[in-house]
Amino acid sequence: MAGYPLPIKHLISELGKLPGIGEKTATRLAMHILRAPEGDARALADSILEVRDKIRFCRVCYNFSEAELCTVCRDSARDSSQICVVEDPDALMAIEDSGSYSGTYHVLHGVLSPLDGIGPEQLKLRELVERIRESGVREVILATNPNVSGDSTALLISRMIGPLAVTVTRIAQGVPMGSDLRYMDRMTLSKSLEFRRGMEKEP
Amino acid sequence: MAGYPLPIKHLISELGKLPGIGEKTATRLAMHILRAPEGDARALADSILEVRDKIRFCRVCYNFSEAELCTVCRDSARDSSQICVVEDPDALMAIEDSGSYSGTYHVLHGVLSPLDGIGPEQLKLRELVERIRESGVREVILATNPNVSGDSTALLISRMIGPLAVTVTRIAQGVPMGSDLRYMDRMTLSKSLEFRRGMEKEP
Repeated sequence: MAGYPLPIKHLISELGKLPGIGEKTATRLAMHILRAPEGDARALADSILEVRDKIRFCRVCYNFSEAELCTVCRDSARDSSQICVVEDPDALMAIEDSGSYSGTYHVLHGVLSPLDGIGPEQLKLRELVERIRESGVREVILATNPNVSGDSTALLISRMIGPLAVTVTRIAQGVPMGSDLRYMDRMTLSKSLEFRRGMEKEP
Repeated sequence: MAGYPLPIKHLISELGKLPGIGEKTATRLAMHILRAPEGDARALADSILEVRDKIRFCRVCYNFSEAELCTVCRDSARDSSQICVVEDPDALMAIEDSGSYSGTYHVLHGVLSPLDGIGPEQLKLRELVERIRESGVREVILATNPNVSGDSTALLISRMIGPLAVTVTRIAQGVPMGSDLRYMDRMTLSKSLEFRRGMEKEP
């Protein structure tokens, strides 16, 4: 890209900062932006500025939101006695897309990761504890990812809110739907055995 | 992405218009843009607007340029008696990066592609012929891609400028460096035999 004019080099370098976009892809995207209709390029730039301008965190659950409260927290049909604790808004959206949860959320915006300098004070933990104390929460479902960081974060939360009068649960770990045991990793198989459930009796 | 606030949906949809970016990748990029430092998002948006604002075509060779003449055409050290005809600025840049060419270029901005409605009048062909007529060009190197569209475009150009007093050449086709004949396609092998050259004698 050495020979491109400066504005193109700028664009390639800015695009290259995006995750998973290397110099080759950035160059291809830049060429597309150069050739696309003027309106498309402007719309892309505007949407980047708009998203930074208009999106903030929900005052209650720290989900992305346009207003003070996010769509979930605003929805009176949601069961506010359940809080599902997730790492980030992407996880929240994945659970929403599954359509199998009607409670509220709490977004931590990260997980414990000492090597990256992320300790309890970098997460929205204090806010979670306060929220549980102040409202009539019945159950806290820990839905951090099933890995070392997610598990240790879940453990920490479970200890922090243990003294409060609230049920703490963890999402189930096991073999995913449609998988083949032959190709499943040992950790998952071992979890699926450890957490085996009694079969429901035929009616 | 149904549940995201509108500005995030906008951004995902605009990013999804870029080539090779599906909804999942667009969502990942949007999340990055939301979390990146404010300055980074602004720099990206600005560079998109800047590139559309400042980049135009070189008056002589139709390469991307910030000024009326591109860096190649401005460079008096380049041999202006040679014109290398390429499909697009990417091809020009690839040849520049190879460091093996010191002449000038002519960017067609496309190749003949009747199915896409691209005929001779959509390419910078008239401009090429005029340029050859008006300046002391000695050789025109046709460096369109070695495929059906590129070959037919090269053939057309060769016929158009045949009557002019200028040498017309085509870049060599054959087996690429470092390749293995076992895995080479038949067309390439057949071209590499058809265009075989006499070995240079030992000195």
